[in-house]
Amino acid sequence: MPDFTDSLKPQYDGQAILEAERNRSPIQVHELSKHLLSRNNFLERQSKIVSILQNDPLFSKRNQLNMSRPDRFHVGLARNKKLRRLAKQYAWDLEDYKMAEYLTDEMSPYHLQHGMFATSVFQQSSDEQRAEWLPAVRDFKVLGCYAQTELGHGSNVRGVEATATYDLKAQQWVLHSPTLTASKWWNGALGRVATHAVVIAQLQIPKKEGTGYDSHGPHQFLCRIRDEKTHQPLDGIVIGDIGPKYGYASMDNGYMLFDNFRIPHSALLCRYSKVDPKTGAFQRQGHPAIVYGTLTATRGAIILNARLVLARAVTIAIRYTSIRRQFQDRDAETSSQEVAVLDYPTVQIRLLPLLATSLALHYTGEAVSDHFKKSAAKIENGDFSALAEMHALSSGLKSLCTQYAADGIETCRRSMGGHGFHGASGLVGINSDYLSKPTVEGDNWMITQQVASYLIKKMDEVVTNTAGKSKDTVVGQFQSFLTAKKPFYTLFQGSEINAKEILNAFEWRSAYLSHEAYQARIVQKKSWTSLLIQLHKLSRAYSEMVLVTNFFNAIQSSNLSIETAKVIEQCFYLYALYTIDNDPRSFSTTGAVADASMDALPDHILDIMSQIRPHAVKLVDAWAIPDYLLNSALGRYDGKVYEDLFHRAHHENPLNKTTFNPHWEDEEIVLGSGDGGKILSKL
Amino acid sequence: MPDFTDSLKPQYDGQAILEAERNRSPIQVHELSKHLLSRNNFLERQSKIVSILQNDPLFSKRNQLNMSRPDRFHVGLARNKKLRRLAKQYAWDLEDYKMAEYLTDEMSPYHLQHGMFATSVFQQSSDEQRAEWLPAVRDFKVLGCYAQTELGHGSNVRGVEATATYDLKAQQWVLHSPTLTASKWWNGALGRVATHAVVIAQLQIPKKEGTGYDSHGPHQFLCRIRDEKTHQPLDGIVIGDIGPKYGYASMDNGYMLFDNFRIPHSALLCRYSKVDPKTGAFQRQGHPAIVYGTLTATRGAIILNARLVLARAVTIAIRYTSIRRQFQDRDAETSSQEVAVLDYPTVQIRLLPLLATSLALHYTGEAVSDHFKKSAAKIENGDFSALAEMHALSSGLKSLCTQYAADGIETCRRSMGGHGFHGASGLVGINSDYLSKPTVEGDNWMITQQVASYLIKKMDEVVTNTAGKSKDTVVGQFQSFLTAKKPFYTLFQGSEINAKEILNAFEWRSAYLSHEAYQARIVQKKSWTSLLIQLHKLSRAYSEMVLVTNFFNAIQSSNLSIETAKVIEQCFYLYALYTIDNDPRSFSTTGAVADASMDALPDHILDIMSQIRPHAVKLVDAWAIPDYLLNSALGRYDGKVYEDLFHRAHHENPLNKTTFNPHWEDEEIVLGSGDGGKILSKL
Repeated sequence: MPDFTDSLKPQYDGQAILEAERNRSPIQVHELSKHLLSRNNFLERQSKIVSILQNDPLFSKRNQLNMSRPDRFHVGLARNKKLRRLAKQYAWDLEDYKMAEYLTDEMSPYHLQHGMFATSVFQQSSDEQRAEWLPAVRDFKVLGCYAQTELGHGSNVRGVEATATYDLKAQQWVLHSPTLTASKWWNGALGRVATHAVVIAQLQIPKKEGTGYDSHGPHQFLCRIRDEKTHQPLDGIVIGDIGPKYGYASMDNGYMLFDNFRIPHSALLCRYSKVDPKTGAFQRQGHPAIVYGTLTATRGAIILNARLVLARAVTIAIRYTSIRRQFQDRDAETSSQEVAVLDYPTVQIRLLPLLATSLALHYTGEAVSDHFKKSAAKIENGDFSALAEMHALSSGLKSLCTQYAADGIETCRRSMGGHGFHGASGLVGINSDYLSKPTVEGDNWMITQQVASYLIKKMDEVVTNTAGKSKDTVVGQFQSFLTAKKPFYTLFQGSEINAKEILNAFEWRSAYLSHEAYQARIVQKKSWTSLLIQLHKLSRAYSEMVLVTNFFNAIQSSNLSIETAKVIEQCFYLYALYTIDNDPRSFSTTGAVADASMDALPDHILDIMSQIRPHAVKLVDAWAIPDYLLNSALGRYDGKVYEDLFHRAHHENPLNKTTFNPHWEDEEIVLGSGDGGKILSKL
Repeated sequence: MPDFTDSLKPQYDGQAILEAERNRSPIQVHELSKHLLSRNNFLERQSKIVSILQNDPLFSKRNQLNMSRPDRFHVGLARNKKLRRLAKQYAWDLEDYKMAEYLTDEMSPYHLQHGMFATSVFQQSSDEQRAEWLPAVRDFKVLGCYAQTELGHGSNVRGVEATATYDLKAQQWVLHSPTLTASKWWNGALGRVATHAVVIAQLQIPKKEGTGYDSHGPHQFLCRIRDEKTHQPLDGIVIGDIGPKYGYASMDNGYMLFDNFRIPHSALLCRYSKVDPKTGAFQRQGHPAIVYGTLTATRGAIILNARLVLARAVTIAIRYTSIRRQFQDRDAETSSQEVAVLDYPTVQIRLLPLLATSLALHYTGEAVSDHFKKSAAKIENGDFSALAEMHALSSGLKSLCTQYAADGIETCRRSMGGHGFHGASGLVGINSDYLSKPTVEGDNWMITQQVASYLIKKMDEVVTNTAGKSKDTVVGQFQSFLTAKKPFYTLFQGSEINAKEILNAFEWRSAYLSHEAYQARIVQKKSWTSLLIQLHKLSRAYSEMVLVTNFFNAIQSSNLSIETAKVIEQCFYLYALYTIDNDPRSFSTTGAVADASMDALPDHILDIMSQIRPHAVKLVDAWAIPDYLLNSALGRYDGKVYEDLFHRAHHENPLNKTTFNPHWEDEEIVLGSGDGGKILSKL
């Protein structure tokens, strides 16, 4: 309905502001985009897929935040199914399909099919089992889930309660949930969709003599869980969706319990463990270490994903705070204009380090993915030497990078003031969805033990001279550490920043803290539990060193044009110095950084931020995040912030179609409807 | 439907675990509850109201997370109206009514009626206007909203674009929105419910001679905005709800634009500004400083609210992590049981300082509320001397306390692993609702300038000896600071902790940073904007000093039984030492704390945590948060975590009533319904 608001314009023109921002920086956005996003033809693929999705009404995100959780699930499933049909229609490959999932920006049941489900079936199956199952899995004829965690048991696989007991006579496994906490829980796609499940259960074989069982620990079983026709759970199984969560509205995380449910002998995925069907004899074979290879590869992907998630939040915040004006400069003439919010150092200090962090995550994500690919090839060939380092490295980085991203989204949101709280910020969905990441795939606090454990072991080897001629970089760092005294590196000469000394400082601190942990654990024999906080800090210090090192290396070898390279270098400095400034005591007491340099940090950070500021909009442009994915009035590329906010409210908000009866004496809610009391049916 | 799960029990018994936790601590929970929650008969009031609400089906929270935003609004309005009827039925006073709002735990349209709306009408109205409006406001005959912020203008009231231009001939005001950014925006209750609004607009009077206007800045106008019968916006106004947000699903935050909309001369609330109806002569009268009195009182309430919000999250997390078991102690026998999650120092270091922080917020909330009450009385009597300090104090504390609470909720959530992400954690609603708090009532970064500004001024007065005989505590601290040299306080003698020296260290650091800021601004004349980050840190240091001081004072004067008092004292140490450990460089470089004490911090913190640990469950019990409010399977008082999680999923989740068609070739979503394509209508 047309009204007088149709002709109104905002007081200041966001579009013109962003244009001016873009005109004043010499950064070559397209060049930088290609530099950042060439892996797997990301940019071309993104253009191809986004043009299909944004024109399909089923993939419109317009009303999503108004929908109930059950409706979100309906829509999510419908989209999942449509994506498969589109994949067929356009002959998408797996990367195309994953891109489409990424752009729809919701976690839905089919997501697990290519992920944990297919991976498990592939890795744990014998060649015969692979031949039997993989084609059906690939074609989504079998719809799967991965049922490991239980109501009472998370990260600790060994704690799983579900049992698979072998019945020698019937040559069947009997799956059973002895308690309520044994209920499978959280498993994606299980709740409403999966027809099959990989179930992790304790493998038990009746003792040859007497009663009781020989237990062989958790194993994977592939079994049918729902009827083909009715899609109801099979007899002896109870299944359901676990209910609403923070995000993931369109994912049916499920629960499942077994009441002596029988599955055939062949259900045990038997690449690495075999049970003789007739004798029940149990035999392990081969090295299942390849599993860790996949785990670490997954974590490489988590880092690259974290950078895009963080880049998305930063894109929105940088564009909006460039446009938004608030308050006048306190020292300025009274008649001066309000200041762009991004010009306040208090806003810069929240956003620009995150912008730099997205780049830090990028270079480490790239380096680690390459490194993992090489190591995985080695492992395939039976060389497990790289495994321990890979596992440690990936654990520490997973913990740190997902924390950066999860916290960063919220920091971006708060930097945007009131409108950051609005649904049209585009951050509601990503925020609630991403909050799972610090917990899943290894809790961020728990897994840092693995890093520390590795570093202590390495330090022990170096101290006792048993490290051999390892090419491990950590060993080299530890060796030089042990022969040196506190270096107190000087990071600045006047206004000059010394990148190499920054690197040295991060390496020294990591080595120092490793040695401290080694002393506490190996020499003083302190209990592991009492050291956990210290070990967590060590993991962080080590991972920060890795991020700084990879960032530094990337700068050395980059072939970006000079202006762009210079800004990226500033981002390196900002990431590194901001990181030091955030944990200053660990850099000073370890003797890593000279006191004068510590004192000079804040001014250098302010200075670097003022140098990056003019390029901020183009830096986020380079992440090339499509408006369709951003789904944000505040972050849209063209800067029409206020027009879009108003349009969404005035023309798209369903609540505005209803006239309410606001008077407390009346039970009626919708004016004139006489619906008094009806509302109870919703509860 | 009964099934085999009905007879299952969890592997470990949460109820028994919590009982054992409670039995091993000598804390007198009821005594401590009364100590914490006696203000305004909080405990008795809570019992009285909760027993009414939890038995009323309209106030059941069961299905809330499954509902769409429009449905949440319907329910929220229905509850609001019912609360009014209950208030009448049970003769509730205002405190009872607020308690009911608190327990329903949702922000709904009527919330503003007693708040900003009534307050404005009261404060800004002449006696005649009060007589005319206040009875109708009190009886909810007039339903109001407070329309200050605009689409393009937040905290900066002076930036408001809406104009109220006086038409001398008609003796009317003409309200007008010249641009899109002039649209009123975010104003609660405006969207769908309010019949009246207090509108803030730039008061303009035509110049006597020539063209143009004399502008007198933003003023408040009370006007009717909707038709009594149809509840439609009056001609010349466009109104609506701004759409979905992070939380606040049942609040109709609204927008409003005026197209030369006319209101009578009497609409100007004229306690402090009068316009002669015939001549248009403008006249200010009286001191509107009382407004700041209300603002600071509101902020006192914000601190007390922050403590309850934080206490709620901590209650859930402490109870759940006491029950939850995960992994075995790495140094223990292999056959040992899994460890309670709260026994890991890595979990303690996240939760126990927050537990201590909730107490720190409590004592400062209490002290500040008392202080504000006294100062407000002074102001009423025309003595404005306390105003500046009150304003500074309240700004710094608002910023710090809401940040503690907002960040604390998320820390609690993450400490609970996977289940923390579940809706049944009870944290989804509180988390998204509370995230607005760091922004509203003064952005947390913006308002810290006011603290710093005050401290710099005071330091200037002390340095130049113009402070007079002020009783201001800050002046005393600054005076001793200026005559001393860096003290490097020693906080520990062996295992003993020296509370007084802790206090001294916080005071010293606050004074030191104040002096540094004074030097930069007044002596070196640096630009205000370039100092913003430094000033933000100063505000935090000052506010932390206030929190530590009030906590310390409360301990000195408490009449709790000895065992309980001892644990509360440990909480004081934990809050103070953890705070130092979180910003160590600012305590060491300012010379506040001796290096040896800095080094000893981590071990002391570990030790204090191990002493608080056995009392953790009873400490949160003392906050007396009813299960109805917690609405959490993880945090329920009786410890039946797993039973409740499973019950909610298996018996209450509406999604489990639908059988889906999971196959991608079919467009149908609900199996057998033939609903292919229908889903598009939802989008």
